[in-house]
Amino acid sequence: MTKLQQISKYLETNQLDLTFITNPTSVAYLTGFQMNPHERILGLLIFTDREPLLFTPELEVEKAKSCVSFDVFGYADNENPWLKISSLLKGRTISKMAVEFDHLILSKSDGLKSVFDGLMFANLTPFINKMRLIKSSDEIEKMRIAGDYADKCFEIGFSFASSSDFVTEMDIVAKIEFEMKRMGVSEMSFETMVLTGARAANPHGVSEPVAIQRNKLLLFDLGVMSNGYASDATRTIAIGAPSDFDRKIYEITREAQQAAFDFVKPGVTAFEVDKVARDVINKAGYGEYFTHRTGHGIGMNVHEFPSIGGAEDVTIEKGMCFSIEPGIYIPERVGVRVEDCLYVTENGAESFTKTSKDLLIV
Amino acid sequence: MTKLQQISKYLETNQLDLTFITNPTSVAYLTGFQMNPHERILGLLIFTDREPLLFTPELEVEKAKSCVSFDVFGYADNENPWLKISSLLKGRTISKMAVEFDHLILSKSDGLKSVFDGLMFANLTPFINKMRLIKSSDEIEKMRIAGDYADKCFEIGFSFASSSDFVTEMDIVAKIEFEMKRMGVSEMSFETMVLTGARAANPHGVSEPVAIQRNKLLLFDLGVMSNGYASDATRTIAIGAPSDFDRKIYEITREAQQAAFDFVKPGVTAFEVDKVARDVINKAGYGEYFTHRTGHGIGMNVHEFPSIGGAEDVTIEKGMCFSIEPGIYIPERVGVRVEDCLYVTENGAESFTKTSKDLLIV
Repeated sequence: MTKLQQISKYLETNQLDLTFITNPTSVAYLTGFQMNPHERILGLLIFTDREPLLFTPELEVEKAKSCVSFDVFGYADNENPWLKISSLLKGRTISKMAVEFDHLILSKSDGLKSVFDGLMFANLTPFINKMRLIKSSDEIEKMRIAGDYADKCFEIGFSFASSSDFVTEMDIVAKIEFEMKRMGVSEMSFETMVLTGARAANPHGVSEPVAIQRNKLLLFDLGVMSNGYASDATRTIAIGAPSDFDRKIYEITREAQQAAFDFVKPGVTAFEVDKVARDVINKAGYGEYFTHRTGHGIGMNVHEFPSIGGAEDVTIEKGMCFSIEPGIYIPERVGVRVEDCLYVTENGAESFTKTSKDLLIV
Repeated sequence: MTKLQQISKYLETNQLDLTFITNPTSVAYLTGFQMNPHERILGLLIFTDREPLLFTPELEVEKAKSCVSFDVFGYADNENPWLKISSLLKGRTISKMAVEFDHLILSKSDGLKSVFDGLMFANLTPFINKMRLIKSSDEIEKMRIAGDYADKCFEIGFSFASSSDFVTEMDIVAKIEFEMKRMGVSEMSFETMVLTGARAANPHGVSEPVAIQRNKLLLFDLGVMSNGYASDATRTIAIGAPSDFDRKIYEITREAQQAAFDFVKPGVTAFEVDKVARDVINKAGYGEYFTHRTGHGIGMNVHEFPSIGGAEDVTIEKGMCFSIEPGIYIPERVGVRVEDCLYVTENGAESFTKTSKDLLIV
């Protein structure tokens, strides 16, 4: 059964008339057509009794037609898209529509309601999340390639960081992204993070034109988009010999990360994985400085379902992909995080990134 | 009256109990606190009878506290944020909430409804858009700086494009972004677009590792984020002498852009501005190849209200900022766009970008 047929089946089972799928990632996942409509409207309409149709801004119609085998309709900037959609569906009963509650904004749900009297929405997000949760071998292969690029980024960054005494966080970011672009990688999966010394104590810090400090740790958190799939990895290295304290914090974090990684296999739960990492850090006395969940799902988005140590638990299955990224953040002093993304195998897990986790001193 | 007071006033006038502002750009505009919560929750709660409060992921509480003078509350990844919000507001009547229909997704509006019985939403987007529509002189100064960086990008890109016979689109993108990062600009306002020859006939084309063609046009569409404000500009140059046809298409586009630009002043409407550009291209016989609106508002977002030639008309006022960017896209043959963003003055308009619009041949 194709992915589109799985959605049709879902509609049938749940007595829904059609979908209006607006998340560009979902559209790419289901059809291969990649585009970001920004404030414009993209909708993938799937039915139980006829071929799907794709609704896009006029500008994208040609590209879309070359990607999908079914009908594509566009609307111009000066047209009312909702009226156009309603005229495309004239004669059909439209009362229950499956939309993505995690993507559809109120102005667009109101737009749909404005042309279909008494329209009810059902949430398609959980079903699509579940489809996307278990990666195919083809998807895992793409993620492996994205992971290889992340390893290359580390190599480039580590070498550039030690190339001169006058290099800044931003210089390193610039160098990494420059080399990626030269290799044909047009997009990082998020803003590359290079943080020196105590600046890494902010888990969401932003790189600045700040000189790299000697005898301090240096944190790299980065990833690329490759073929529609994301990588995400973190390494913390040292520029010159670090203090014993920094080294200790590094080793605790690394141990927590490795313990959680080694624990992953089908049948354990996300909460248990989180607990394994957290227990190591708690036992060492730094639990209060590990302020976030242990990981997040990854795939076509750098953050996707499931959360590892979030509000919801989930049982780990073969084919799931997620990060393991404990960290210790002591304000004004030191920040360490070690992160790999993995895919779950029959009996354990494999990492998408291979860069050593021994504390590297450059 | 401060911006926050203006919102309070709006709530009072419209008999609304509070806001739950989720758009990070709106939060930054109103409070100076910049952060992207991704799938987590950020909410700015403004009231009529008490100080505002900011609700953020736990990770961001410290940073938020350093930016705002009122209370900040965080929630951890393993907490239910909606229950936490409801407990923060215990004892208050919460029946009408102003939210941004252009930002709030259904899962979050459902989250709010789950803890406030019978909650009704009012759309705050138009009011915030209207606040943001007229830029202050401080905002215009920031946009001028962002524009200066765009001019620098052109200079870097034009020079790099002609530096070797073996340079690709992606090489030029890499070089421009590298130099920007070295100047401390950490973020482009969108994916830098460098498109050679007929590849520019797709108005939303994506740069690839494709060699720059000689005796063809080369299109650059780019901008940076600087101090929270965006720039956006397009220039089309020639690599070696272009054909007479390409030159003609260039001159028509340029004339359309200049005519629309010169027409802008307080009192005219967005539709009229669009028509001025479109008339030039129609008259030259290429109207069918100008497939998009003439422009879009710009400010903290690269695309914001109003649209110039979209579905809705608006009367131009002093302090509005928007792009003028007609283009002619002849499939398989040639693509040209010329774009500046401007701010409306007492009697006309000033461009944020100064790079010459004479056809440059390098």
